[in-house]
Amino acid sequence: MDNTDNLLFKISSPADLKKLEPIDLVKVSEELRQFIIDVISSNPGHFGASLGVVELTVALHYVFNTPYDKIIWDVGHQAYGHKILTGRRDIFHTNRKYKGISGFPKIAESEYDAFGTGHSSTSISAALGMAVAARQKGEKRHVVAVIGDGAMTAGQAFEGLNNAGAGNSDILVILNDNNMAIDPNVGALKEYLLDITTSRTYNRFKDKVWNFLGKVGKLGPDARTLAAQLEAGFKSTILDKSNLFEGMNFRYFGPIDGHDVMHLSRVLEDLKRIPGPKLLHCLTVKGKGFKQAEENQTAFHAPGKFDRKTGQFIISSDTDKGTPYNEIFGKTILELALKNDKIAGITPAMPTGCSLSLMMKELPERTFDVGIAEQHAVTFSAGLATQGMIPFCNIYSSFLQRAYDQVIHDVAIQNLHVVFCLDRAGLVGADGATHHGFFDIAFMRSIPNIVVAAPMDAIELRNMLYTAQLDKNNRPFSIRYPKGNCHLTDWKKPFRETEIGKARLISDGDDVAVLSLGHPGNDVAVVIKRLKEESISVAHWDMRFADPLDEETLHSVFKNFKNIITIEDGILKGGFGSAVIEFMADKGYNAKVRRLGIPDYFVEHGSQEELYRECGLDRAGIEKIIRESVGSPAVSRLH
Amino acid sequence: MDNTDNLLFKISSPADLKKLEPIDLVKVSEELRQFIIDVISSNPGHFGASLGVVELTVALHYVFNTPYDKIIWDVGHQAYGHKILTGRRDIFHTNRKYKGISGFPKIAESEYDAFGTGHSSTSISAALGMAVAARQKGEKRHVVAVIGDGAMTAGQAFEGLNNAGAGNSDILVILNDNNMAIDPNVGALKEYLLDITTSRTYNRFKDKVWNFLGKVGKLGPDARTLAAQLEAGFKSTILDKSNLFEGMNFRYFGPIDGHDVMHLSRVLEDLKRIPGPKLLHCLTVKGKGFKQAEENQTAFHAPGKFDRKTGQFIISSDTDKGTPYNEIFGKTILELALKNDKIAGITPAMPTGCSLSLMMKELPERTFDVGIAEQHAVTFSAGLATQGMIPFCNIYSSFLQRAYDQVIHDVAIQNLHVVFCLDRAGLVGADGATHHGFFDIAFMRSIPNIVVAAPMDAIELRNMLYTAQLDKNNRPFSIRYPKGNCHLTDWKKPFRETEIGKARLISDGDDVAVLSLGHPGNDVAVVIKRLKEESISVAHWDMRFADPLDEETLHSVFKNFKNIITIEDGILKGGFGSAVIEFMADKGYNAKVRRLGIPDYFVEHGSQEELYRECGLDRAGIEKIIRESVGSPAVSRLH
Repeated sequence: MDNTDNLLFKISSPADLKKLEPIDLVKVSEELRQFIIDVISSNPGHFGASLGVVELTVALHYVFNTPYDKIIWDVGHQAYGHKILTGRRDIFHTNRKYKGISGFPKIAESEYDAFGTGHSSTSISAALGMAVAARQKGEKRHVVAVIGDGAMTAGQAFEGLNNAGAGNSDILVILNDNNMAIDPNVGALKEYLLDITTSRTYNRFKDKVWNFLGKVGKLGPDARTLAAQLEAGFKSTILDKSNLFEGMNFRYFGPIDGHDVMHLSRVLEDLKRIPGPKLLHCLTVKGKGFKQAEENQTAFHAPGKFDRKTGQFIISSDTDKGTPYNEIFGKTILELALKNDKIAGITPAMPTGCSLSLMMKELPERTFDVGIAEQHAVTFSAGLATQGMIPFCNIYSSFLQRAYDQVIHDVAIQNLHVVFCLDRAGLVGADGATHHGFFDIAFMRSIPNIVVAAPMDAIELRNMLYTAQLDKNNRPFSIRYPKGNCHLTDWKKPFRETEIGKARLISDGDDVAVLSLGHPGNDVAVVIKRLKEESISVAHWDMRFADPLDEETLHSVFKNFKNIITIEDGILKGGFGSAVIEFMADKGYNAKVRRLGIPDYFVEHGSQEELYRECGLDRAGIEKIIRESVGSPAVSRLH
Repeated sequence: MDNTDNLLFKISSPADLKKLEPIDLVKVSEELRQFIIDVISSNPGHFGASLGVVELTVALHYVFNTPYDKIIWDVGHQAYGHKILTGRRDIFHTNRKYKGISGFPKIAESEYDAFGTGHSSTSISAALGMAVAARQKGEKRHVVAVIGDGAMTAGQAFEGLNNAGAGNSDILVILNDNNMAIDPNVGALKEYLLDITTSRTYNRFKDKVWNFLGKVGKLGPDARTLAAQLEAGFKSTILDKSNLFEGMNFRYFGPIDGHDVMHLSRVLEDLKRIPGPKLLHCLTVKGKGFKQAEENQTAFHAPGKFDRKTGQFIISSDTDKGTPYNEIFGKTILELALKNDKIAGITPAMPTGCSLSLMMKELPERTFDVGIAEQHAVTFSAGLATQGMIPFCNIYSSFLQRAYDQVIHDVAIQNLHVVFCLDRAGLVGADGATHHGFFDIAFMRSIPNIVVAAPMDAIELRNMLYTAQLDKNNRPFSIRYPKGNCHLTDWKKPFRETEIGKARLISDGDDVAVLSLGHPGNDVAVVIKRLKEESISVAHWDMRFADPLDEETLHSVFKNFKNIITIEDGILKGGFGSAVIEFMADKGYNAKVRRLGIPDYFVEHGSQEELYRECGLDRAGIEKIIRESVGSPAVSRLH
């Protein structure tokens, strides 16, 4: 690449950007867009979102005095341009890689990352905190939250607006309206936004009214008085209150074209001088500037590698092995729902990600995308369950954290037949700390009444889903499964009921007992087979359930083994291994129990393999702990 | 009482109510109101909320076909009238008592209780679930959610509206607008509601516009065309969208007088025939009909016993002992904030309940009531912390469940200096299953980076609050304390720093070691003193922290004792006791550890004493477990 007249390559920080003329911003934007396309096509990451805010990113850093002024990128997967402009251009190729930069803003990574994000809809709350602190400290500081129309549907965004609107804090909320979450955005708010941006444009109507009032005024003194009265009424009612956001006491501006960088800069410059809470409504196109991404926004939300010219996805041979767990879920739930008309499918804005889209296509009347709204998703499911339906509420493990109270308060206390399907449970890889789903075993098993299951493979997952919907298992049920593929190819077997709270023996042995929960059992089985060659004899149970525990099996294990290993893809503190040692303590057994799982810190990003290795949850780690247990020192070997 | 012409006493179910003439509803309402005042003045419970919805309750059961039609009472503390009209009049005096009826709606208690509530803002989600299920099953069923203006500020209510507005489900949301949460309601929404109900009344403005358009029409053909255009614009913009709720695609009706029972009945009858999502805005007065409650709404939200005539509170001698923990918090945080100007106080709508009101009065610019919005409260605190402030975010333990993701995602991952003050931690008594705060030890200690503390008494609480704000302890910090009084009277001692992760020895002994966390340590100390008379020698450590554990002390304990008891006012699964046995297992110790805490079921309501007894957490239970440990059979004795 000849970079001689490339402006982007001369920008090491926003100070360099500010030296440019407004007209240059168009060129910078285009270069930034191409740079993102270049890097992301070969270093997979989020894609469409960052392309959609290229101009906004350039304009914000041109106008505002970052890092003194604060920009908070809601969700944060759209902050690539921001990272590139703020000193991370040359390491951007390490994005989402092990020990590389994070795919989300991160305070620890840069002073320009004002607030770490990842989960949606936190930005207004955080921005308000910063604005209030600035006022407290007498600092004149601008605080900007950039939030998508999808993220705006989550309750927390509303809570933030409600609180910010009541005070008089100087915050600017930029609504990045592309009419999309990962899947197309849903809900009344979306309809509303579409409405004010299309035929019945709010602004156009406003203009019309002013024109009309002008004409009426000419009709005579009587009409003039009326017009004046009406104008006052309009000012208070239409201008102050007719807009949803102005109803929340935000001054509303827009909608404006989010891809006109010069106009954007001028508008932002104006807004800097307007105090109080204000909202700028920007219309953008997700994937802007890359034709295939504009046309297929969901697929290009976070594609793998793709051909930079044709937009064709490049399937690596690795991802070919086996079937993604989410697909197994999606196909199975459809199969079950076709036979059992009580089943409903619920997802908070992840129909494609969790593959509930398959059911949605065939059975739209029983499949519900409720928007980014985990709390609502759970209580809505509880409402369905009170009427005899069997809702399968599919929420990624780390997002279920947002509905923890609803799980307890609306489902568990009432002992309702809601089935939680926790996709992306455990270490998720490149999305990193905010997206790992490693708390759910601990927080779900503390709650009375809920079955806490973690099937080991695709066949087990299918049988668990089948079991969960049987009428006799009329209680809260949660099923966790990981991100990624199951190694099994021939998984579409006839359904078999799983006895709740019953483990299964995978291999018998004498030296040590391994109790695994969920998918790590597959690696355990491989390691055990290998160790057999050295005459190390390991018994292995796939425990299946963290709650209820299989007490019969545990009694037998504790009676027969002095060395026991537990393994789980979840946090050690309070997790499945703790459940096993609680059993040991309560029943008066005495064995050496070694626990493998996620240690007591926030694991960062990287490939799943790298992260499992870091936590000792890979095959080498499993082998190591088994050898420790049997007192057979490790022989270095490749895995 | 002469009940001969009392209508209420003839109503055993809504069927009896329906036999009456509309005019009789006025009398029934008044009788119901007096009945509630009679019973609650001597059997303490929530008060103002139920008085405010007496007429609404009567009208709903008169018009709708309950229990086939579903009424969901958001929060539920206003459902006393509902309980009395639906067959529970004669047992209403057992309200909130051990083994008596619950103070909240409860599915298990009555078929008329369509959905259990307790925490706010779940009703719209649940109602939507029921409406969707009815459509699914081809049932023609009305579903009504009654939600207060305070509850409407929580994000989940917005999520419910957003989802309901997008579909076309037949649900009726009744906004019970009394301008109050427990404390006066706050936020932009409140201003908005006030606005449309006062001078700039939406309806009045609408009328004015129609009048005006009529007049303009007479001014000539030109004006007529314009007027017609404008009318269309008005219809679409003002009528469809000018209202916040209509922006969410709800048909908005009101505001109407919530105390005119006959008018209410007529309006509800009309609304039954209108399909789709609709909202009826009712204006009510909290405490209506009891002068002192109307005038002092916060104090009469849930008063103790009071004189039915004078409204004077009757202070029982019991509640006189010691000082409420919340008051100790409130006074201490003010004291600390006066010295440290980085400190901010945050509460989601509980300034009086948590006594942050004391700081709010003295330091209003650093004290924030953010409304019923726990998620926002936590992320807002995180935002403050990024700017060097030290937010003390006071949230009742069971309500923090609603911000679990924000604790992880916005505070812990970023390792921000937010201090969580968890009031009402442990068994709370009469509020029951939904309000017990017994999960926090388990769910907080699973999260990396957070200090999890539970001071034993008032002096320890003060020192812990003092310690948490020291600059050197710049990390997330949580401090839990119970509902009720601390026995200490002389607690206002000079502050002393507590070493983080350091236990304190309360008494030395040889036979058994008791490791207590938090307030149960006080009962342990009493029991130990008594057992000393029998020469049972018990060592006792107040562990202070569930995380980090005091490993030095634990090493010493496990080296010196074969019998160890842990005790906590929290769920056993994954709690503090589990942390101790995790330590034991990890370090290879071997002792008999007995764990006292909350068992694996949802404890119901009753006095705290009754519930502690049920869980074996009272002095008798503590004595029993110590005797078991030392092999000294229990001698029956009174406590």
